[in-house]
Amino acid sequence: MDGSGRARTRTRLTAVEGGARRRGEDWLATEEPLDIRVSAGGVDFSVGVTMRTPGNDFELAAGFLLSEGILPSGAAITRIEYCVDKATGQEQQYNQVTVQLAADASPILPDARRFAISSACGVCGRGSIDDLIERGLDPLPDGPILQAMTITALPATMEARQRVFTSTGGLHAAALFDADGALLALREDVGRHNAVDKVLGWAALNPRPSAGRAVMLVSGRSSFEIVQKCVVGRVPILCAVSAPSSLAVDLARRFDLTLVGFLRGNTFNVYAGERRVATE
Amino acid sequence: MDGSGRARTRTRLTAVEGGARRRGEDWLATEEPLDIRVSAGGVDFSVGVTMRTPGNDFELAAGFLLSEGILPSGAAITRIEYCVDKATGQEQQYNQVTVQLAADASPILPDARRFAISSACGVCGRGSIDDLIERGLDPLPDGPILQAMTITALPATMEARQRVFTSTGGLHAAALFDADGALLALREDVGRHNAVDKVLGWAALNPRPSAGRAVMLVSGRSSFEIVQKCVVGRVPILCAVSAPSSLAVDLARRFDLTLVGFLRGNTFNVYAGERRVATE
Repeated sequence: MDGSGRARTRTRLTAVEGGARRRGEDWLATEEPLDIRVSAGGVDFSVGVTMRTPGNDFELAAGFLLSEGILPSGAAITRIEYCVDKATGQEQQYNQVTVQLAADASPILPDARRFAISSACGVCGRGSIDDLIERGLDPLPDGPILQAMTITALPATMEARQRVFTSTGGLHAAALFDADGALLALREDVGRHNAVDKVLGWAALNPRPSAGRAVMLVSGRSSFEIVQKCVVGRVPILCAVSAPSSLAVDLARRFDLTLVGFLRGNTFNVYAGERRVATE
Repeated sequence: MDGSGRARTRTRLTAVEGGARRRGEDWLATEEPLDIRVSAGGVDFSVGVTMRTPGNDFELAAGFLLSEGILPSGAAITRIEYCVDKATGQEQQYNQVTVQLAADASPILPDARRFAISSACGVCGRGSIDDLIERGLDPLPDGPILQAMTITALPATMEARQRVFTSTGGLHAAALFDADGALLALREDVGRHNAVDKVLGWAALNPRPSAGRAVMLVSGRSSFEIVQKCVVGRVPILCAVSAPSSLAVDLARRFDLTLVGFLRGNTFNVYAGERRVATE
């Protein structure tokens, strides 16, 4: 049980074309809140509520804890489970996930960091990047190097596997590939950040050589938040079908992440980390 | 000075086409943090940091306070200003806005509400909707009724005015129209929720008969958050170029908001509040 059965919701609608209208039905991408909780040392607390599409909720919870810097790795996670309080309704139970941590784990609460950011007069993009450096994050290591044709083949591979998007038109997708362009994991969600967290959570909960995680592809745009998640998740190449923001590019350059945008047909732009892209 | 001059950022890039590469330059949509602060009764505190595109920052701050339920209306706002602490750099000064409130204002802090949501075991979409009802929000009033052809004409009007998107490909847009389809305000941002908040902030800071605010059009999808902002902002019709989520439809039906999706060419779908759409 991971909530995947609730990824789509049937709805009534009225379709209008010109001056005519007809009744119909269609599928919607499901959006429901997920309360992500951490249990450590006998204390149980919420680290955030995110609006997400049900499915792969344990991966989402694990990925959120890692990419937001609450946990340094998945090693401290001993168990993940849905709410088991019998007093709550069934629907509610599957909207709350508790991540059990080992007794010696020291989660870093996001509120502590948020307060640190807002206590100064003035914030800026450079400060947001410095905040990641202060968390001890290093630039991404050398390699791998991908052929341009490997990169241009990625979107078709992802689109062929986007099951829920095809029926609803309402989901973002994120996919992880190895350096040969082979798909490792694909996740969909109404929130692009959630789709990326689900993929990173999959990687954390399915340990394999992390060097194999070469490329993250996202269906939309690249923002600061998406680049941050890839830096924390140690994915050296981020490709997006659409445009990056200025701060996404600044952050990618600071951590030597390869940032590709406008990946369409056989063309794309490289905004940072160009040395990982080979053209013949 | 409202930051509009920083909406775009120039960048270097490498354009790859097939096996060839060339150096180039292009515009990116600027993304920078904005610290939104409230000053009331001699106390100054941050209500949130949002990653946004500079421009119309005062509208964004006002709209955020209203649509997040921190203020019931714009009447309590006496002044909005950038950080004036001379010790901070110029760039930082324009990333912090303080909203001064009248002495008798009683802002409701978002953290208090977030705690209330997460203190129970289990959350669900219905609970998120009930939370809005508990805030005292009423269903939207009757009217106006729009012709289908007025609705299908809206996207072209918006696209013709999307200045920054045209040069960067990286921005969401939100636009407010009256019942005749005349454009009242259009705002762009890397965050769709910010674009909607800027438009609602414009409406709050430029009081005119609120009955004239008939339709909000957003460039992307409709989520719970976007419908929520329209309900709070008392905009009775929300149109989106793309798909709604399940919870967006549930919330629209609960508050009798007209929700239109897949607005393309001369076709669209109506998911809620069909009585405000006329076809001949």
